[in-house]
Amino acid sequence: MFSMTTEYALRAAVFLSESRGDVQIASRVAEATKTPVRYASRVLQLLVEGGLATSQRGPSGGFALSREPEQITLLDVVQAIEPIQRIRACPLNLPEHAHELCPLHKAIDAVAANAEQTLGSMTLADVMAQQVVPLGITIGGRKPAVAPTTFPEPAADDADESK
Amino acid sequence: MFSMTTEYALRAAVFLSESRGDVQIASRVAEATKTPVRYASRVLQLLVEGGLATSQRGPSGGFALSREPEQITLLDVVQAIEPIQRIRACPLNLPEHAHELCPLHKAIDAVAANAEQTLGSMTLADVMAQQVVPLGITIGGRKPAVAPTTFPEPAADDADESK
Repeated sequence: MFSMTTEYALRAAVFLSESRGDVQIASRVAEATKTPVRYASRVLQLLVEGGLATSQRGPSGGFALSREPEQITLLDVVQAIEPIQRIRACPLNLPEHAHELCPLHKAIDAVAANAEQTLGSMTLADVMAQQVVPLGITIGGRKPAVAPTTFPEPAADDADESK
Repeated sequence: MFSMTTEYALRAAVFLSESRGDVQIASRVAEATKTPVRYASRVLQLLVEGGLATSQRGPSGGFALSREPEQITLLDVVQAIEPIQRIRACPLNLPEHAHELCPLHKAIDAVAANAEQTLGSMTLADVMAQQVVPLGITIGGRKPAVAPTTFPEPAADDADESK
């Protein structure tokens, strides 16, 4: 239903959310979210263009959320990357359907409406607040203001248990 | 949420459904469903490959549904074109999430699950049975077995009311 770009953007947003005010460089976001670096740079740029993140240049520069995690929903992220298309009018432009969609397009629109509802009702803070930590990001007491983040070893497909 | 390819495939399936046993050539499907001919040919081929339609060669050849409209759901069509991806395991392959997805991926999967449920509970027959005729296809008494289909004039953007 969602493209890999959207998936990567959601991961990046969650990571920036865990980082709170700390700026993060693209390569760090890429590493932490298991995203190809070029992809990570691209989605971070899209988050900036969508008003969800800010970028700072310079040696201590990087990306950070532009609002508190409580104020950004998963839907906000999705809409910044690949907006969910609601069906407001007959895609075939049929006059018979000017006032009411046909059942086919009603069903397709119902799926889109549900996606808006589901993703719009969960903020980045909600994602972090739950017991299962997102993206495997384990931070001491969770939700630190400035504490550096630490991450588990990436899980290799042919998992070598000896770290 | 769905690509234009999927949209066109759904339109084609509804049209074949209205046509019942009658075979339809790709250009006719394209015209009736306002789909570019090359696109229509492609989605019809995908419907055949997905087992939802059959194609017959020859002068009286064309495409027809392989099952009754009562036995094909919108989900069947979507899955034949661009399968809905459920999230069964952590996309980051994190061992911490081996037994339970994180809230982010649970939410994404919930959207996919809803799409499966919504589209899986509506058959092509259901689409045709409702009052607002799908795709503007108006057939005398609706659901004829073999009667030729007739269609309204395409609604041009700058609608020419004459004719």
